[in-house]
Amino acid sequence: MTLLWLESSLPMVRIDRNHPASLQRQIYDLIREAILGGALAPGTRIPSTRSLAAELGIARITASNAFDQLIAEGYLETRKGDGTYVGRTLPDDLLALPEDPRLGTRVRPPQLPSHRGQALERLWDQGVYQKAGLRPFQMDAPALDAFPFELWGRLESRHLDRSAAMNLAYCDPAGHPPLREAIAAHLRAHRAMACDPGQIIITHGSRQALNLAAQVLLDPGDAAWIEDPVCPDARTAFTCAGAHLVPVPVDEQGLDVAQGEALAPGARLAYVTPSHQFPLGVTLSLSRRLELLDWAFRAQAWIVEDDFDGEFRYAGKPLASLHGLDRQARVIYLGTFSRALFPGLRLGYMVVPQDLAKAFRSARALADRGSSLVPQMALTDFFNEGHFQRHLRRMRIVYGERRNVLVEAIRQSLGHLLSVRVPDSGLDLVADLEAGSGDVALVRQLARGGIKLIALSSLYQRTPSRSGLVFGFAGFPERSLRAGIGRMVELLGEPG
Amino acid sequence: MTLLWLESSLPMVRIDRNHPASLQRQIYDLIREAILGGALAPGTRIPSTRSLAAELGIARITASNAFDQLIAEGYLETRKGDGTYVGRTLPDDLLALPEDPRLGTRVRPPQLPSHRGQALERLWDQGVYQKAGLRPFQMDAPALDAFPFELWGRLESRHLDRSAAMNLAYCDPAGHPPLREAIAAHLRAHRAMACDPGQIIITHGSRQALNLAAQVLLDPGDAAWIEDPVCPDARTAFTCAGAHLVPVPVDEQGLDVAQGEALAPGARLAYVTPSHQFPLGVTLSLSRRLELLDWAFRAQAWIVEDDFDGEFRYAGKPLASLHGLDRQARVIYLGTFSRALFPGLRLGYMVVPQDLAKAFRSARALADRGSSLVPQMALTDFFNEGHFQRHLRRMRIVYGERRNVLVEAIRQSLGHLLSVRVPDSGLDLVADLEAGSGDVALVRQLARGGIKLIALSSLYQRTPSRSGLVFGFAGFPERSLRAGIGRMVELLGEPG
Repeated sequence: MTLLWLESSLPMVRIDRNHPASLQRQIYDLIREAILGGALAPGTRIPSTRSLAAELGIARITASNAFDQLIAEGYLETRKGDGTYVGRTLPDDLLALPEDPRLGTRVRPPQLPSHRGQALERLWDQGVYQKAGLRPFQMDAPALDAFPFELWGRLESRHLDRSAAMNLAYCDPAGHPPLREAIAAHLRAHRAMACDPGQIIITHGSRQALNLAAQVLLDPGDAAWIEDPVCPDARTAFTCAGAHLVPVPVDEQGLDVAQGEALAPGARLAYVTPSHQFPLGVTLSLSRRLELLDWAFRAQAWIVEDDFDGEFRYAGKPLASLHGLDRQARVIYLGTFSRALFPGLRLGYMVVPQDLAKAFRSARALADRGSSLVPQMALTDFFNEGHFQRHLRRMRIVYGERRNVLVEAIRQSLGHLLSVRVPDSGLDLVADLEAGSGDVALVRQLARGGIKLIALSSLYQRTPSRSGLVFGFAGFPERSLRAGIGRMVELLGEPG
Repeated sequence: MTLLWLESSLPMVRIDRNHPASLQRQIYDLIREAILGGALAPGTRIPSTRSLAAELGIARITASNAFDQLIAEGYLETRKGDGTYVGRTLPDDLLALPEDPRLGTRVRPPQLPSHRGQALERLWDQGVYQKAGLRPFQMDAPALDAFPFELWGRLESRHLDRSAAMNLAYCDPAGHPPLREAIAAHLRAHRAMACDPGQIIITHGSRQALNLAAQVLLDPGDAAWIEDPVCPDARTAFTCAGAHLVPVPVDEQGLDVAQGEALAPGARLAYVTPSHQFPLGVTLSLSRRLELLDWAFRAQAWIVEDDFDGEFRYAGKPLASLHGLDRQARVIYLGTFSRALFPGLRLGYMVVPQDLAKAFRSARALADRGSSLVPQMALTDFFNEGHFQRHLRRMRIVYGERRNVLVEAIRQSLGHLLSVRVPDSGLDLVADLEAGSGDVALVRQLARGGIKLIALSSLYQRTPSRSGLVFGFAGFPERSLRAGIGRMVELLGEPG
């Protein structure tokens, strides 16, 4: 370590040859801090790079590179034939900084973010988004152990050679056109949906799709039907758009359209999960589908069909979508690849009416200019080469087995407490608690022991709630499901 | 083709063995349409699968699979020992559909989207987001011909094997933690920024970062300073958040802080591009930086520092950021990888004050749950293995040469019309037009000939505007730049 006073005007300059920062950077930092801290006043003459280098025993080029940077940034200035000075035009009074600037001392309390920013902070505090690993029986993950990642890697790298480079500039914000064609073909063939690629908007998944729908369809104060109970994501997205939420009860036929009309006939939007209602798992009946479409037509309202689990039906083929029944272009259909492929992919899509395509494309462009391109290209091949259908077929078998194992384990070990029906679709199931047991307290108790469930009653808004536990089973091999139930038995044996 | 009447109740059923849809699907579709179209009334008895199969000459399993699906969806119902019927509970009056349902005939005019949705449509119509390939001298693309895509492909596929599978569930919405560490280390080492990984939020690029900043920091009606002239993206993001925009003139020292204070001393936010003002290319001087920070401290306002071209300085190192001077945690710093790497990657980042980290993480989670994971992992390696610095060094040389070629070509061939200075940073430059020439008309004339420029005057809001042309040069090899100027000469020789 070298320790010096440099002429009278310069503060102590410490150069440490073992410091990770380069010598040039150390000189730059020290002079900059001396100016900003007021130790070197505007107009002060600075020694030449030659004498600085000599005193510090360093190469002159090192000192002069540091000076060049300080000159470029306005800290120093040169006068022809007259050496280097601290910039004269620097506002003297602004150079006095609070003590210990390195600690970022704040002498006034920070200004708060916007009201929306404060609401977002509260959401964070409520734990709405926090995730900590994957514990049984979280619902976030599909069977990552069964995804063909090596194949996927090959599909991605195919598009990463020089010949493909020119495709990697900005693309259509609505998504890679061949991917939109592949999705449209899939929906036509497998979900009875007549749509063309121009109606498809690629998203970063359902949550973004919900936000785009809320932005494009709802003005602040507009009424929106949501299912009761409902998935928290939908509630959050529509609330953030300033909508007035109208919880509509769900019975064994799905959303009760007549009650929705009684509560808010003039709502602008209805949010539904027709294939597999979350969390109850019921299917929206055909009569209700027709009633809902009829209401939307009469009220000139929109229907947001969130088909997040639509691909996973264990008896027969996936049910036709509500979108496929819609003759009035009232339905906005949301699909995701987080469950069919993997969540880290961050891709999903929406099918929007032709009349709204421009507004949705614009909203998507404004949000973030579109999704990452290489994953979109790989997904296109995954569809076009038949992997998607093959993977779904395999996964339906895997998930059907996981579902059976979970139901059996619950019945065997927790049958005295929980009653459960075998769901015929979806990646989660509800087990009802004996009357009188509080699901919220139970879920909290189990969480302390590493078991992650959702209390059914916490998903209700207004309707008298059922008490139960929502289990996700897709992300866990059969032995983990059994072990999870074993752990529950253990925890429930302990004094709460 | 088989053509039949099935008993008295069923309409004509056409089965086409050459049709791309399976026989099962054809039967399903025909019966479903007959029910929805009213040809088959609720309660009508349907022939058995056995007789249907016999009449059509198909396997019975085909017919019975089609029936199962129709039963599952509620179109048909079975009664024990009594065959199959059209669902009795279907609401009779809802089954009458408008004519030619396949064409989606709309008998009422569609309801309009929300006011925001309508504004988004207008933005689209104004061509704000439209992109049509890459023509000289568009500014959207870096030198895609010089990016190491093969290396990138290897880095991506490294993370796509079975062992990595468990990492591919949902990740931290603020971004892959090792990537945030790598970026923080880069900023500490190369941009004089003291920040820790907890302050870094990975985004889909600058546009998303601008939206997040607008949401978290601005309430509707809040005043926000923007540079005049300004990049349209920033204007759009703040406008969409309902902010009242205050254009503040830019001179050769950058944003005129004193004028900003005179116009709107109580603004909540100032948007600046200090390293390379867009479009003028000037650097915000050190005095102005200090004045701006001082104002933000006194007004308790935020500064959004958009450093989109900060890495590209041709003389010496990149300039230190405004963020590095900030001792009061007023600066939100935006960086992008669209220019340093490639736009199709859709990754960028922001560095936010500790106090705001929670609100920004929450906003990011709400928007779309975070970015695609595999590209984030590849980018982490790209940093940690030294490729990022190496690539930037190479690109500074490539871009410096492209800049020189463009300036020389303009001076040689268009010197009578345009005057241009060699910019010392950035991937674009401004050429001033001779007084009296209208840049908007000129840009329109050149666009018809395949040359894409921006009229400088169109980027001004309020300040008396300069007339000039904004050229992007990064995306074009030297021969394309020369050819583009040649084409301009040709076009300008033709009668406008």
